[in-house]
Amino acid sequence: MIRTHDAGSLRAADAGATVTLAGWVARRRDHGGVIFVDLRDASGVVQVVFRGASAIEDIGLSEETAVAHALRNEFCVKVTGAVERRPEGNDNPELPTGEIEVNVSALEILSEAAPLPLPVDDHVDAGDDIRLKYRYLDLRRSGPARAIRLRSRANQIARTVLHDREFVEIETPTLTRSTPEGARDFLVPVRLQPGTWYALPQSPQLFKQLLMVGGMERYYQIARCYRDEDFRADRQPEFTQLDIEMSFVTQDDVIELGEAIVGALWRELAGHGISGPIPRITWHDAMARYGSDKPDLRYGVELTELTDYLRGTEFRVFAGAIDAGGYVGAVVMPGGGAQTRKELDGWQDWAKARGARGLAYVVLDAETGEARGPVAKNLSEAHLAGLADAVGAKPGDAVFFAAATERREAQELLGAARVEIARRSGLVDEDAWAFCWVVDAPMFEPLEEGGWTAVHHPFTSPNDEWRDRFEEAPDRALAYAYDIVCNGNEIGGGSVRIHRGDVQRRVFDLLGISAEEAADKFGFLLEAFKYGPPPHAGIAFGWDRVCMLLSGADSIREVIAFPKTRGGYDPLTGAPTPITAQQRTEAGVDAKPKAPTQAAAEKPGTVGVAVPVEHSN
Amino acid sequence: MIRTHDAGSLRAADAGATVTLAGWVARRRDHGGVIFVDLRDASGVVQVVFRGASAIEDIGLSEETAVAHALRNEFCVKVTGAVERRPEGNDNPELPTGEIEVNVSALEILSEAAPLPLPVDDHVDAGDDIRLKYRYLDLRRSGPARAIRLRSRANQIARTVLHDREFVEIETPTLTRSTPEGARDFLVPVRLQPGTWYALPQSPQLFKQLLMVGGMERYYQIARCYRDEDFRADRQPEFTQLDIEMSFVTQDDVIELGEAIVGALWRELAGHGISGPIPRITWHDAMARYGSDKPDLRYGVELTELTDYLRGTEFRVFAGAIDAGGYVGAVVMPGGGAQTRKELDGWQDWAKARGARGLAYVVLDAETGEARGPVAKNLSEAHLAGLADAVGAKPGDAVFFAAATERREAQELLGAARVEIARRSGLVDEDAWAFCWVVDAPMFEPLEEGGWTAVHHPFTSPNDEWRDRFEEAPDRALAYAYDIVCNGNEIGGGSVRIHRGDVQRRVFDLLGISAEEAADKFGFLLEAFKYGPPPHAGIAFGWDRVCMLLSGADSIREVIAFPKTRGGYDPLTGAPTPITAQQRTEAGVDAKPKAPTQAAAEKPGTVGVAVPVEHSN
Repeated sequence: MIRTHDAGSLRAADAGATVTLAGWVARRRDHGGVIFVDLRDASGVVQVVFRGASAIEDIGLSEETAVAHALRNEFCVKVTGAVERRPEGNDNPELPTGEIEVNVSALEILSEAAPLPLPVDDHVDAGDDIRLKYRYLDLRRSGPARAIRLRSRANQIARTVLHDREFVEIETPTLTRSTPEGARDFLVPVRLQPGTWYALPQSPQLFKQLLMVGGMERYYQIARCYRDEDFRADRQPEFTQLDIEMSFVTQDDVIELGEAIVGALWRELAGHGISGPIPRITWHDAMARYGSDKPDLRYGVELTELTDYLRGTEFRVFAGAIDAGGYVGAVVMPGGGAQTRKELDGWQDWAKARGARGLAYVVLDAETGEARGPVAKNLSEAHLAGLADAVGAKPGDAVFFAAATERREAQELLGAARVEIARRSGLVDEDAWAFCWVVDAPMFEPLEEGGWTAVHHPFTSPNDEWRDRFEEAPDRALAYAYDIVCNGNEIGGGSVRIHRGDVQRRVFDLLGISAEEAADKFGFLLEAFKYGPPPHAGIAFGWDRVCMLLSGADSIREVIAFPKTRGGYDPLTGAPTPITAQQRTEAGVDAKPKAPTQAAAEKPGTVGVAVPVEHSN
Repeated sequence: MIRTHDAGSLRAADAGATVTLAGWVARRRDHGGVIFVDLRDASGVVQVVFRGASAIEDIGLSEETAVAHALRNEFCVKVTGAVERRPEGNDNPELPTGEIEVNVSALEILSEAAPLPLPVDDHVDAGDDIRLKYRYLDLRRSGPARAIRLRSRANQIARTVLHDREFVEIETPTLTRSTPEGARDFLVPVRLQPGTWYALPQSPQLFKQLLMVGGMERYYQIARCYRDEDFRADRQPEFTQLDIEMSFVTQDDVIELGEAIVGALWRELAGHGISGPIPRITWHDAMARYGSDKPDLRYGVELTELTDYLRGTEFRVFAGAIDAGGYVGAVVMPGGGAQTRKELDGWQDWAKARGARGLAYVVLDAETGEARGPVAKNLSEAHLAGLADAVGAKPGDAVFFAAATERREAQELLGAARVEIARRSGLVDEDAWAFCWVVDAPMFEPLEEGGWTAVHHPFTSPNDEWRDRFEEAPDRALAYAYDIVCNGNEIGGGSVRIHRGDVQRRVFDLLGISAEEAADKFGFLLEAFKYGPPPHAGIAFGWDRVCMLLSGADSIREVIAFPKTRGGYDPLTGAPTPITAQQRTEAGVDAKPKAPTQAAAEKPGTVGVAVPVEHSN
């Protein structure tokens, strides 16, 4: 090491010691002949002092050089000097090193810094593009550096839990088989077999199940995953998940492990103890009470179903939904009656921006509790009289309604309104952590053209209650599928897998997947399942999101060292770029594949496979 | 868990307990009415016993079903029964569970197994293709499973060393910038920006240096890397390295860290203590003594240079090399004089297969020490008389010669002969571990067309002795570059990087790289180096190879869960495959990029960058 001490580690007890430090010039102040420099390294900041111009001459620089070139912000320097108690009254209690300073006797400029395109200053806000273009300067700031360091600790904490339980860390391939169905796969041309391509995996799902067939029993990996799709909100083309699979376990075992990991992370990194098991809520309950499959439980504001209460109403919007076997419900905005007409109209715009036709409401008079507003006129006196009790509203509140033939559509609108109500009314305790498991997810959902599709993936196991009879009511059949939710963010999810051939065949039958199609889509996994697959289950945590929440950031970009912007663009390197004709030729992009392929020639039954995916990003 | 105990954990002390186990039928033996089954799970094997046909009836199976379907090899089963001491004389001392057996009272077949294409038997050898095609069966065997588990422990051990030293684990991007120079980059078309491509990185080199500029100071990552090239010997298109970079350090600091990691790995996984610092040998000494930059030090058989000794010889082959300023040297095969004429001829074939014209030799008579053989006739009596002393040979030995204008060419031929001598003469102690650091590697090597190229990469720092004057003798200038070698395998390598702009410019000048070309090739790294880069250095361990050596395997495929064969083919999934026209269209493979690209439009100075690479696979 070219230094003897870390700058941030010096304390009053070190006074008298001669130290050599190395780091960056965070700030320079000239007070007459005395120059003060905040010297920063990874451990923190310490004040180093150059006492008088003569001192600068002593250390071998002419004063001119010192003034002209030395010690601009972000120069990288090495200094040697004596640690001294600061003069009386000059302590800086905000700095861990604030009782001392280093009186410099030797200075070496390790490298200079050009004028900075991005100030290395915790108090300066910069745009995302400039921050990412100069990410190496951004990372010198304490916030961004802290987020990256926290992520490293999160990895370590999770791995400790897993190794203590004898999990085996296994790397799975990232150059895998492309499938016509994997429309979001990144593709990779293969120089050595021109005309053929790999795909980058959306998750290690297939491989982790194969590892269970292989008897590894307890697998984990902090795995890079890839998805070539619209960068909605906060997505990245490459992302990371903590990927786990276990054999000979039930849903409860996976949930217990998940709680051990989450418990350790939040205890050590957020100072938050999770007491007792994390509450579980069924998927149907979560939709009914919160209008969301990832409910934010930091506040109440629950939904109320009014389908039965309003049965017989003459208000066409509600009656239409009710008569069609649909759903009418409401959510209360406490004190929402005090909103201006403009604010209430604003809710209509909000609803329309979400694709709804509007958001019906009544406001309850703060004094009399009388219901007013456009919907009130359409409801009978009896319905109005009992409304406040039915939805749990008080005088001065507003009640928002949603009605639809599709229960889920109306519930989700109310669920979104619930989140917006909490935001606008300041009901969110930003210091709170509210976790839940959402369990008993539906197995199937109907296709518009008739028939059924799998909600999760076709290897997800029905639960015990439905395993032998899911065909009776596919819309009500439940799966051993579970998500873990933190403050309204899904941070992980998984399922018990089907390991019995007869159950798998019945699921394929219901989904209208023929034996040929199954072999074509899922060939090598089904082949593996012929050879004594164990019961197994797993989970994947969206690691970027977990670290984002732990670091208090509002974007996963904050916990990624070199993230991309929307559209997958990297302002730092300029990736992606066009390629040259020569690169194109060498990579075999336009080569015709030899037919038949090696795989097809060897074993026709295993060509083609779709990738069932578990991810939580 | 659907079991109460791990099969391999049961001992005599458990006798009397009722246990539920789950695992695979490893072997079944029928002895009259009694069926013995070796039940295997991840923890090991235990014998479970079905006592009599009536017992099978008791557990709810008809005898017919039991015989017809139950308990073929690799069925996955759950059994409940009583742990019992084995009957007198039936203990199996080779099995940790050999004192007991489990008397089964309930059996559940969790899943059946079709006839096995690959026997799950440690004693059956199978071809690589069939092993990889059914890797999930292969992994049920104890050897392959052990190799994968060892790798997980290796990760954990290395991480412990690094976290104890406050290293930060940071993930770097794998979707990065493609460069025309990166002829071995895998390319990835980008759907959202049709006509543009990412590249998969050959190593995190650029990003880890940027992290040092970003003040992270101590970085590591067990990183996936990619190289699209001929699969020589034991290469994979994706491979893993333990990648490390440190700021404010010297070469000695990196070497000390490397020894801490290697020491911990070998101590804990190979039961081998490395005493004291690992010996260092300069690159030039390694070439002179062993004819290799990764010498196998498990045996002696050193090379001797004879250029001076043979000066003035009339033997044209040697004289030609000597007169041209080249090299003549020799290596001794102890006892090699006893080889038959056919064996000695075999060495000529061996040399020709390596591209040499042959391998000159003399044999020393076992009795008289007299030199014989084709070369002997061409050497003077004086040269012959002193030869044995000059090369350290004894009567009965053989002496092999190499001569070439290029010193390295002749040394490498002798170095390869040395390895082959050790192999043929049984000089390799297969239980030995011999480590060394090869240091002081040359900075530059001459290009055939004149000028110089960098041996490592152009950011490698000259050492202190040469930093200010490498231009004086580029062929002799030395770098702070170091490789760690184990038993003749390079398992890691790295260098101190240049952090001073003036030194970097002089290196570029010597390499004939103009400022424009440098900006074009190394743009964003050079841009970053404008802003106070710290002195930094790093190393990368070829993790597949490290784990291979630790597990005693002879191929890196043994420590990769799902490896590919030569040519990058995966027998399990059939990857790579052709893609459909629709996939091609959707991925934007044939789209014309919009010009200019976003990067070029923003900052012309940063377009284009070549990826200097540090890897050890």
